[in-house]
Amino acid sequence: MADQEEVKLYGVWASPFSRRIELALKLKGVPFEYIEEDLTNKSPSLLKYNPVHKKIPVLVHNGKPVAESLVILEYIDETWKNSPILPLDPHERATARFWASFIDNKILAAAVKIGLCKGEEKGVVILEVCEQLKMLEQQLNGKDFIGGDKIGFVDIVGNIVAFWFQITQEVFGGVFFTPEKFPGLFKWIGKLQEIDLVNECRPPREKHLAYVRGKYESLINAPK
Amino acid sequence: MADQEEVKLYGVWASPFSRRIELALKLKGVPFEYIEEDLTNKSPSLLKYNPVHKKIPVLVHNGKPVAESLVILEYIDETWKNSPILPLDPHERATARFWASFIDNKILAAAVKIGLCKGEEKGVVILEVCEQLKMLEQQLNGKDFIGGDKIGFVDIVGNIVAFWFQITQEVFGGVFFTPEKFPGLFKWIGKLQEIDLVNECRPPREKHLAYVRGKYESLINAPK
Repeated sequence: MADQEEVKLYGVWASPFSRRIELALKLKGVPFEYIEEDLTNKSPSLLKYNPVHKKIPVLVHNGKPVAESLVILEYIDETWKNSPILPLDPHERATARFWASFIDNKILAAAVKIGLCKGEEKGVVILEVCEQLKMLEQQLNGKDFIGGDKIGFVDIVGNIVAFWFQITQEVFGGVFFTPEKFPGLFKWIGKLQEIDLVNECRPPREKHLAYVRGKYESLINAPK
Repeated sequence: MADQEEVKLYGVWASPFSRRIELALKLKGVPFEYIEEDLTNKSPSLLKYNPVHKKIPVLVHNGKPVAESLVILEYIDETWKNSPILPLDPHERATARFWASFIDNKILAAAVKIGLCKGEEKGVVILEVCEQLKMLEQQLNGKDFIGGDKIGFVDIVGNIVAFWFQITQEVFGGVFFTPEKFPGLFKWIGKLQEIDLVNECRPPREKHLAYVRGKYESLINAPK
């Protein structure tokens, strides 16, 4: 692409949603400026570029903003066509979009509830998340990556399962995501960790753990 | 496309999600077999083709299933390339995907709550939906359709706003979606109604009203 291209990413270091955008840009070799947002004091730029949701991530390409991480990933794949993230076949593309949506709208929606409930109710939600993770695991079906023999759309979106769940379960209590229960997913996590760019786009473990613990404590101690 | 193509759509006549798939197929001139599902007694085919969500709509193209209405619309646009539904420019595509997701994940999520709450709480939710609808209305910005001078992705997804909201507000109580409050959206609805295929893909008003009323009554009278 032309030299004068300007690519900016507004994100938060601990967010799987902006981290997946970083990863996609790096996998494509797209140079970009990363701007760390403070969500307790959002910048005028973030509010200008994402006035609807006022959330990160936002990608700004030559002054034009794109919001919502799945939408941004599709935009990146359509704009920089090297090293495709999505498969080329329409049915395989549909399958990838289906599982990406499943991760964000089903697994994640259930997983956040784990931190908010207790006792028997927590057990029920954990069971639900485990069933969903098993369905995701089946998509590997002997392959190294969900996308096949190399990292693709669902693997990039799946960063939240690969690198956030082990942290959050340590904070929330009720450990369920283990190599014993999910050997396929943990083999996949091992394959992801063989990719330097993937490791560059993960928060450092101890810092991440402290951050999630702080967030969780302020949430459960918040006045009702 | 080849004569031997087999396209089947599993849907429910009153569902905006399967109706939008019907509309996309008809706008593209793709012949298909429509199979009406009984959601109280789901067919073995539906369970086979969408084992994860067990929901309509499911499109089955030459034996291969695609589920989730937004994923199906993208699949249709990528498979039958005539009369594109999405714009061709990557930034315009991203904008269309953003607003389609806004309709399904924000407006709809808030709107369903209207039927479930009462009094002051209902007023708050209605205000939230109205603010979201105003944002959608601004996307028209003088154009006939959200997609521009012809019906596109967001217009097709927006069928739920155009043709379901007037029915549900009549049943749920708390009328808020009126031509006085939303002149732009009602002008857009008028433009949609000038398209015969759009009218073919809407439930008949009285039958639809009776159906929604029946569903709503069984929901609010269900044992807690």
